[in-house]
Formats: sequence, structure tokens, C-alpha cells
Amino acid sequence: MSRTCCTGGQGRKPTIMIRTIGVDPGSRFTGYGIVEGEGTRLLHVANGVIRLSGELPLTQRLKLIYEQLTRVIAEVGPECMAIEDIFFAKNVKSALRLGQARGAAILAGVNAGLPIYEYSALEVKKAVVGYGKAGKDQVGEMVRCLFRLSQPIDPNAADALAVAVCHVNTSGSRTRWIVRGKS
Amino acid sequence: MSRTCCTGGQGRKPTIMIRTIGVDPGSRFTGYGIVEGEGTRLLHVANGVIRLSGELPLTQRLKLIYEQLTRVIAEVGPECMAIEDIFFAKNVKSALRLGQARGAAILAGVNAGLPIYEYSALEVKKAVVGYGKAGKDQVGEMVRCLFRLSQPIDPNAADALAVAVCHVNTSGSRTRWIVRGKS
Repeated sequence: MSRTCCTGGQGRKPTIMIRTIGVDPGSRFTGYGIVEGEGTRLLHVANGVIRLSGELPLTQRLKLIYEQLTRVIAEVGPECMAIEDIFFAKNVKSALRLGQARGAAILAGVNAGLPIYEYSALEVKKAVVGYGKAGKDQVGEMVRCLFRLSQPIDPNAADALAVAVCHVNTSGSRTRWIVRGKS
Repeated sequence: MSRTCCTGGQGRKPTIMIRTIGVDPGSRFTGYGIVEGEGTRLLHVANGVIRLSGELPLTQRLKLIYEQLTRVIAEVGPECMAIEDIFFAKNVKSALRLGQARGAAILAGVNAGLPIYEYSALEVKKAVVGYGKAGKDQVGEMVRCLFRLSQPIDPNAADALAVAVCHVNTSGSRTRWIVRGKS
């Protein structure tokens, strides 16, 4: 579902717009954001949050993360998935929970045949805000401004859009190919 | 693929042998073991280990855990999956890695339509060795004796068989139903 479009002006080369799904996984809230872009040209396609009750067993939540992301991917047809690389968590217990949610999100991408790209939080913040230690609010506000969204955006969806933006901005200069699913 | 068999002796009720896959997930070694049983009657069906190079990106390893477990499930046709519930890890980094591997293993079961049952390490050790603080070697040796296996067994496969045994032994008295996949 890549789109060919002109950057504007006669004689300019047509560019390929790559559709990327960014994911911010969590055992309660998994944000996703889809952007189309090439270099600094960006288009907001969609964003959302998979909200799961804390009452549900974690195993059930993993199933729902996988199923709902699989459905979003089938509907919007991204060509790749970008996800934040995680190195820390509050404690071991929350790291185990977060790891399982992240595994479910990655498998939804892999099983849909998408290559998965990972970026550190520092890279994502630098790409979006220009400052690696930016706060969650700053990221959300910058994402809203970037896409001229009239309403405030859910922080999980904003983080997901941010990692997708990071991928579009940096994929031209380097490729962090991790895995391609079905061939 | 449940099997009806007699417990022996005239007039005894026929029992349903339930085939269970036990899984011991890890980012390098994922053990699996399949047993058939009802109460204290147990039959070893198969066991094995999915060995993954530390050189592979974690995302690639998740894909392989999912794919290989999916293939084993299709081949041996278990009716349920038993997996150890994890509450601790060496540190946050290894908890994140372990969590992702566990998420991939659970999804292989869920997407094959299996209900998933979780047991704590204490419950597994008590069920197999009779002592909640038994060491890994004791569990391995007990599993080998239980099934009269002539050769020593890989410790990851032994742990997987142990959690399957725990499920068979305890499922008659209580059900820890977590999630059923495709309906």
C-alpha cells in the first residue's frame, strides 16, 4: 500500500511513501500509530489504543493485543513495524509483564509478514523533539503539532506515532532490519 | 487426540487420557514435553528443545519459538498447554527477554486453540518431586525415573515435562483455566 507522490514542482523525482505502523506495547494499554512518509514528508493515517482491563488474566490480554494489532495491520496495510527497544522497567515483575506484551505485538507484525525495526527511547525522542531527554508530554505535543491534530492525543498513541516518525526520519540514512516474517 | 483406555481390571471405568504440552520458555532454549495422562496415570509422548543462537536478534528468536512450537503442536496434537508462571528473574534486562519468549510460547498455544494453564515453580516441584524447593537436577532425575527414560534428559525438556505432569496431577482436583484460543 505504498503511495507514489510528487514532492511538488516540475521535474522533481516522484518519491515512494512508505506506510509504517509504530507500536507502544503495554499489558494494559498498547498504543499504535500509522504514518506514511519519506524523509521529512509525513502523513498521519490513523492512531489508537488497545485498552485492556487489569481484571483480565495476562494470557487473555496477550491474545487480545495480538488479535487487535493483527486486525489493524490487515485494515491499514503497513509495510513495516517500528517499536521501541526497551532496556529498563520499574522492577522485574513489570519487566516480565511488559516483555510478554512486547512479544505479542512483535509477533502480530512478524506473522503479518512485516519487517520489524527497533529504536531506543533516546533515538525516538531525538527524532521527534530533537532532545533525547524530552518528557512524555513534550513528545505528545510535538506529535500533535507535527500532524496538525486539533485534539490532544492519547499518550500511548502519541508514543507509537513517535516511533513511526523516528523510523521514517532515520530509515533513509540507515536500516535497522531485524526480521522479516512470511516470505 | 485424547485416548480412552482402561485403568485395568473388570468393571473399572474407562478414563480419558488428556494430552498436554508443557513448555519451559527461554530466549536461548525453550523446552517442551508432551505427556498423556489422567490422575496418576502418565505416558511420555515426546520432548525436545528449541535451541536458538545468541547471535540471532531477539525478534528473530521470538519468530522461531512461535513457529517451532506451532509445528510441534500441529504434529502431536495436545489438547492443552501448561506453562510455569514466572515471578522473578536475575534482573530487569533478563526479565524483559524472558517475558518476550514466554509471550511467544503462549501465543503459539492460544493461536492453536489450546487453553493455557499456569503453575508456579513451587507447585511444579511439589507435584513432581514432592518438595517445593527441589533443585533442577532433582526435577530432571525424577522426570527421567517417572517415565523410565533410559537416557538423561535435557534440563529444559525436563522442566517442560515437569509442568505437564503437574497439570495432569492437579487438573483433576482444580482447574486453572486461563484462556481458550480459537473457538
